Amino acid sequence: MNREQLYEQIRKKRSFLCVGLDTDWNKIPKSIRLDYPEAGDAIFEFNRAIILNTQKYAVAYKPNIAFYESYGSEGIRALERTCKYIKDSYPEIFIILDAKRGDIGNTSAMYAEAFFGEYTTSDAVTLAPYMGRDTVDPFLKYEDKWAVILALTSNPSADDFETQPMADGRPLWKHVLEKAKTWGCEPHGQLKSSTNEDRVMFVVGATRAETLKEVREIVPDHFLLVPGVGAQGGSLEEVARHGLNPQCGLLVNSSRAIIYADHTEHFAEAAAEAARDLASRMSALL
Amino acid sequence: MNREQLYEQIRKKRSFLCVGLDTDWNKIPKSIRLDYPEAGDAIFEFNRAIILNTQKYAVAYKPNIAFYESYGSEGIRALERTCKYIKDSYPEIFIILDAKRGDIGNTSAMYAEAFFGEYTTSDAVTLAPYMGRDTVDPFLKYEDKWAVILALTSNPSADDFETQPMADGRPLWKHVLEKAKTWGCEPHGQLKSSTNEDRVMFVVGATRAETLKEVREIVPDHFLLVPGVGAQGGSLEEVARHGLNPQCGLLVNSSRAIIYADHTEHFAEAAAEAARDLASRMSALL
Repeated sequence: MNREQLYEQIRKKRSFLCVGLDTDWNKIPKSIRLDYPEAGDAIFEFNRAIILNTQKYAVAYKPNIAFYESYGSEGIRALERTCKYIKDSYPEIFIILDAKRGDIGNTSAMYAEAFFGEYTTSDAVTLAPYMGRDTVDPFLKYEDKWAVILALTSNPSADDFETQPMADGRPLWKHVLEKAKTWGCEPHGQLKSSTNEDRVMFVVGATRAETLKEVREIVPDHFLLVPGVGAQGGSLEEVARHGLNPQCGLLVNSSRAIIYADHTEHFAEAAAEAARDLASRMSALL
Repeated sequence: MNREQLYEQIRKKRSFLCVGLDTDWNKIPKSIRLDYPEAGDAIFEFNRAIILNTQKYAVAYKPNIAFYESYGSEGIRALERTCKYIKDSYPEIFIILDAKRGDIGNTSAMYAEAFFGEYTTSDAVTLAPYMGRDTVDPFLKYEDKWAVILALTSNPSADDFETQPMADGRPLWKHVLEKAKTWGCEPHGQLKSSTNEDRVMFVVGATRAETLKEVREIVPDHFLLVPGVGAQGGSLEEVARHGLNPQCGLLVNSSRAIIYADHTEHFAEAAAEAARDLASRMSALL
């Protein structure tokens, strides 16, 4: 999916909500677990109900692969079915695989194939920048697919390295933005008909909304994926104030506050309500 | 597997060889692909032949998960079968899942469960340090399991961030070593009966053997996982000179130079020969 298509959907739905499908079998309502004794089936059916009930309010879904991998090949099968269900039923919706991968060359190309290839069809993958550009390059070869690079995360130990000052006094995360915004461009360019802004997004945690202003000074035009609104305590209004750009430029993620809004058989309606609430606040901010 | 058991195996085999199972279906000999038309089966059968023929010379195997994920749930099933085959047939051999994962809290715990739990049984997982200690903590809760943290890698773009100087003039990778060697200890300790050296290893690329000396100044007692010998051009003798410590402290990985030593139906014998050669050079260095 290209940037224009993503923005078109945001305008149409008046929402920039991304719903995180961090589906933990232990938190799935008993009614589903009884109907679907296989973990993989239960995970898929839960996701299907969440998607069906929230797709009007969400422009993106973000399954975190860890939750699926923890059930082995059965879990990965549930992830494949979830992505296929979204693409078959709601092809206009953006899928981000939250994988935080970071490997090099040959191996990175394998990951790109794993996530953009025939098995798990997604539009975007989150990537860790530690090993540098080699980790991202193979993902930039896919037309209309996106690399979503970790910049500043919202966890406490982001202060271990991300916010530590480099030799020039600026934190590591600013160096990541500065460098990564040039990747795919000349002289090693792999983006033929696109710019970096058409293929790269950055992860910026919402619990540090004030730093979004500094982020925008470096990457004014990029889309930012902002987790941490809701369960992790970030403020949507603060994020919008500092992060919105003329093409929206934000995907704000909420996971637990939506998918686990209710733990009974009414979970899907509760998820719809939570998503609708967030989307209507987003509509007011756009 | 604990450090004493790993060292015992190294002494017995007089080898510190880790064989990388970066199994690419496209590079598997035709004879196997004809016998096993399903990609997952072919990958497993290839691995089984490699393991059977190299286990006398190797103390560890390191499947890189990307290669398995690129075949979806079928590939993950091949990985599960490979790990089970090793543990059932050669329980003394160390298994490192090269996953380079890096996520936080809840999600990181899910990854730990994925790799140390019931589906894919391994002894160690490689982790990326960008997001800090939160990414590693959940892995330190498992007795006799290991977190293998990326420090200095051998790819060209390691210079994007890893080798860049921080405010004190020292490169990022040294800060990673300094901080990570304290994780799991007080005041947030999760290592009950062990020290950091009993649960943490570091990845240091062999193409920078001279920097191993600097690594050893910071972490004299830790095990180091050293990729890049063989196809990537690192020198085993240089690595040993600077990296060996009284308990060996090295696992040197070779992937392509062993598993693709020959592309015909004689691949397994060729792999055995390549592994034997490396192991005999290691024996001379121990």
